Amino acid sequence: MRREHQPLFAIMVMTAFLGTAAVGCGPQSEESPASGVVSEPLPSWSEGATKQAITRFVTRVTDPASPDFVPEAERIATFDNDGTLWAEQPVYFQLLFAIDRVKALAPGHPEWATTQPFKAVLDDDREALAAAGEHGLLELVMATHAGMTTTEFEQIVRDWIASARHPKSGRPFTEMVYQPMLELLDYLRAHGFKTFIVSGGGIEFMRPWTEEVYGIPPEQVVGSSIKTELEMRDEGPVLVRLPEVAFVDDKEGKPVGIHSHIGRRPIAAFGNSDGDLQMLQWTAAGDGPSFCLYVHHTDGDREWAYDRESHVGRLDKGLDEAQARGWTIVDMKNDWQRVFPFED
Amino acid sequence: MRREHQPLFAIMVMTAFLGTAAVGCGPQSEESPASGVVSEPLPSWSEGATKQAITRFVTRVTDPASPDFVPEAERIATFDNDGTLWAEQPVYFQLLFAIDRVKALAPGHPEWATTQPFKAVLDDDREALAAAGEHGLLELVMATHAGMTTTEFEQIVRDWIASARHPKSGRPFTEMVYQPMLELLDYLRAHGFKTFIVSGGGIEFMRPWTEEVYGIPPEQVVGSSIKTELEMRDEGPVLVRLPEVAFVDDKEGKPVGIHSHIGRRPIAAFGNSDGDLQMLQWTAAGDGPSFCLYVHHTDGDREWAYDRESHVGRLDKGLDEAQARGWTIVDMKNDWQRVFPFED
Repeated sequence: MRREHQPLFAIMVMTAFLGTAAVGCGPQSEESPASGVVSEPLPSWSEGATKQAITRFVTRVTDPASPDFVPEAERIATFDNDGTLWAEQPVYFQLLFAIDRVKALAPGHPEWATTQPFKAVLDDDREALAAAGEHGLLELVMATHAGMTTTEFEQIVRDWIASARHPKSGRPFTEMVYQPMLELLDYLRAHGFKTFIVSGGGIEFMRPWTEEVYGIPPEQVVGSSIKTELEMRDEGPVLVRLPEVAFVDDKEGKPVGIHSHIGRRPIAAFGNSDGDLQMLQWTAAGDGPSFCLYVHHTDGDREWAYDRESHVGRLDKGLDEAQARGWTIVDMKNDWQRVFPFED
Repeated sequence: MRREHQPLFAIMVMTAFLGTAAVGCGPQSEESPASGVVSEPLPSWSEGATKQAITRFVTRVTDPASPDFVPEAERIATFDNDGTLWAEQPVYFQLLFAIDRVKALAPGHPEWATTQPFKAVLDDDREALAAAGEHGLLELVMATHAGMTTTEFEQIVRDWIASARHPKSGRPFTEMVYQPMLELLDYLRAHGFKTFIVSGGGIEFMRPWTEEVYGIPPEQVVGSSIKTELEMRDEGPVLVRLPEVAFVDDKEGKPVGIHSHIGRRPIAAFGNSDGDLQMLQWTAAGDGPSFCLYVHHTDGDREWAYDRESHVGRLDKGLDEAQARGWTIVDMKNDWQRVFPFED
């Protein structure tokens, strides 16, 4: 069920170091992220049509007296990650991870000093990196995401997540998550929904931290992947990560990934870009009630403002379709009283 | 993360119609399968070392005072299906499904009357089918499992499961499940385990009925798969099943499938053949406590007796390793007071 021969992170291409989006971050405090239980539902959501659309749908499918009641086992909700649960500016955070890894591994690869696209990374040469194109980006990913065991890669991700900081906010990346979406995850789970991530990002890049940050366990994370192979070593069996793309969980890949991993159609789907459109269409095409929501990045002060022209998380066709079909569109600036957990 | 270019159901090859195993079925009654809650744990298991090994392990990892306590989120248990949860004689049930499908589809394929391996199926010619080898079997699978939407295939499986009968017992295949294993699934879930199927069988062949029969929802089923592709039709998006193998979830594929779908290592694994050995090795290689169990088919009266020489579900290397490492081996004849739910 996995599509081949597509470059991983293809949608990062050409956008990596362009930094075209307006950048800005809200006030910062020392509070830690609050992903736990909230005392009232959706407190960071402004009262209004958007919040009402959410709570009305949940009531509609969970009230046993409702004609649209959905049994708990079928309450599947899928969430995109980049730009939907956590931020994706100035570039996808996983690309920053790959760049950090190239720099960390460079001492063992003296040839990188003169070989593209590695030289571009080591020289912080955005123009040369952009010129390397899709093929160059794929080389970066394979050089940094493959060639080790799955256990080793998990530790590398854990170490990076614990130490790396967002270039603008100076915060750990796991604090660059959207407080209203954390509340939404909790709210849905409190009403019997099973919450899944369905992201174009690497599945093994997300799994080490999604349970702690989002309350989503590894088995409920779907993402892009490279191949692995079982190898019997003296110390026992290991899974080795191979420099070969297995699956790209983006655009038309999202329904494929949902079907492969989950095996039933979501009744609610949440995204923020054209890469999520097929997931929302797939969700809306179910026989029963469904809920489709786009997060629209409209807040250039507290977060970033971008949509139709953005190289990261472009929302163009999806915005048209959401408007035409009456899907819920979050106006981040007006619908969210708080964006990040660390805000006052 | 999916391995390519391996024939689906490769282990069915040459075994399809050989029927070498001793065949026998126990007494039958009109009782329906009991997959629900049981009043005392494991009532169909004989008192003794095997049952004790199970209950002691569960106590060891679930008692908060135990030094080997495992948090609930990490209590992952994986089960093979064919020969572990339901029977697999005289041949894998999915092969009987494929044969029935060839016969059902034959009127639309007049060329099959003169083309192998289809002619062999239509003529009930076991010798010719065996001669068709791996390639022929793959042709059968692709002709019967691909070329329709996922929704259509699900309905085909549902219809077959509801109407087909086991050639020896005359029972629906969903009654050819092992009562002690149903109780084990319930017992583990009652102690906070999350139960998964990890089978060489087709993932879409299992998902339509595993929740009702085993209490295992579609998202906790891992299996072999063919590729699917999103197609936009006038009536909306559909996933079309392509005649191309995506992943073979057998032998060294099982740890790969576990890692891809579940993303953490099981602490308990249950199988019955050499095809499960790598799953058990992978489970045993974890840092913490682990439990590995082989079902050994030793009861030629109530079920079938087969192991090292069998073409279906061969247990040879696995039996040696289980004995050497002290894994739990179920002696079906002595450890199970009841085999099938329909027995008195």
